[in-house]
Amino acid sequence: MTRSILTVPVQKVEGPSSTSFQDLLAVEEPLEIRLADRTISITMRTPGNDFELAAGFLFTEGIVQDAHQIRDIRWAKAGENPRQAGNSVTVELEPGVDIDFERLTRHFYTTSSCGVCGKASIEALEMQACPALPRDAPRVDRAIVHRLPEVLRSQQAVFDRTGGLHAAALFNAAGELLLLREDVGRHNALDKLIGAEFLAKHTPLHQNLILVSGRASFELVQKALMAGIPILAAVGAPSSLAVETARRFNITLIGFVRNERFNIYSGASRIQ
Amino acid sequence: MTRSILTVPVQKVEGPSSTSFQDLLAVEEPLEIRLADRTISITMRTPGNDFELAAGFLFTEGIVQDAHQIRDIRWAKAGENPRQAGNSVTVELEPGVDIDFERLTRHFYTTSSCGVCGKASIEALEMQACPALPRDAPRVDRAIVHRLPEVLRSQQAVFDRTGGLHAAALFNAAGELLLLREDVGRHNALDKLIGAEFLAKHTPLHQNLILVSGRASFELVQKALMAGIPILAAVGAPSSLAVETARRFNITLIGFVRNERFNIYSGASRIQ
Repeated sequence: MTRSILTVPVQKVEGPSSTSFQDLLAVEEPLEIRLADRTISITMRTPGNDFELAAGFLFTEGIVQDAHQIRDIRWAKAGENPRQAGNSVTVELEPGVDIDFERLTRHFYTTSSCGVCGKASIEALEMQACPALPRDAPRVDRAIVHRLPEVLRSQQAVFDRTGGLHAAALFNAAGELLLLREDVGRHNALDKLIGAEFLAKHTPLHQNLILVSGRASFELVQKALMAGIPILAAVGAPSSLAVETARRFNITLIGFVRNERFNIYSGASRIQ
Repeated sequence: MTRSILTVPVQKVEGPSSTSFQDLLAVEEPLEIRLADRTISITMRTPGNDFELAAGFLFTEGIVQDAHQIRDIRWAKAGENPRQAGNSVTVELEPGVDIDFERLTRHFYTTSSCGVCGKASIEALEMQACPALPRDAPRVDRAIVHRLPEVLRSQQAVFDRTGGLHAAALFNAAGELLLLREDVGRHNALDKLIGAEFLAKHTPLHQNLILVSGRASFELVQKALMAGIPILAAVGAPSSLAVETARRFNITLIGFVRNERFNIYSGASRIQ
């Protein structure tokens, strides 16, 4: 169940001719995340780095704040449901770590179909005491930004084979790639990346930047904020709410990073 | 609140030089969908065609089966929360239409982060008595498939200006464009499209095909199935579960439709 690529027979049509061949697909499977014997999320993801995904989800959704709060992450026991084997993760928290399940339930009503409640969520972020990021760090040379997509693509193992995965990559201010994660879901790719850093006790990531392979939505900006990442760059376009949120919290938001060009939508002072 | 495009100042960097200009962004705002005084979904969407989005969501999620079950769709009253103006839709059902809210609650646990429960959901679709589609109709010439992306792009008004929107387009078997919808969310674009056809009492769409501008995930195949659409074509890659679901329900699934090429992953007999 940990395959991230699957081979299937396919009929390839080119103009008037067609041939049979074996194509590679990005695997999409559900991952159930369980907390204190309750299912708190089922997300469609590409298998791999699932513990990081679970930890990153709990962290970027504000359910846990510190890696020390997590006692253990493990696969759900076989036998509960054979179909869930490899697709269900249980997170056990340390005794005394409180979870407001009622708040969580409300929360999940507001995240169905990939979103949280817009402007209300900007307020929610403020109420979670998310501080705006320091304005002055890091400083990154624009030549480094120009190079990010090339580094991403050279390291993006699965995408090149399936064309079906989103990627999120963490860099330092010198433009060195620190970590890359891929997934069929753009938020899952970022949760896996942030989850790995969270479990390694590297958060907040105040000196780092992130490049994502697709578009920048509100949700990606929110996750960057939770992880303290001051610069979010995207190969694609940002949404209006992504820009608004980035400006509110002093995040540098960069879009359309490709072909020696990019647009800075927020926080231009960090780019030299 | 019904703008789908917003203008923002942006710093454009090209190589070593930079200039200020006004960029166009796809608007991303929350839409709350209310049913019988309960919030059943909040989705991040691009404003426009919101009643169709609400109807399409209820229909493709299996909550309503027939347009006659809907008495009225209206904006939530101003004053409840000024912030919600234009971002909250109330659906009123005809008396006697039963909603299983408990099932709905379970359902929403399984759709957070854009998905439903994978293989379990294939079973869920079977339990909802989704019949597999008839294998023999429609028949579509491959030359028609080759032309779909060009027709889509020529009609996709907002995408060309922002680069930030997904599109879903409905065609007849002769390749004529019948309807197109755009949204920051790929499932919302398809829900708007299907919702419009559902409200017009055109479903099931057994003689039609759909082209989506991005990748084909499980969720898009599921929505096509609910609307009875036998052919789903995507400009991008399909996921493993999208292919598996399409095969199970006799849906023709086509990926990578571009540059006079495409791949048929399921149901090749419908393409001549």
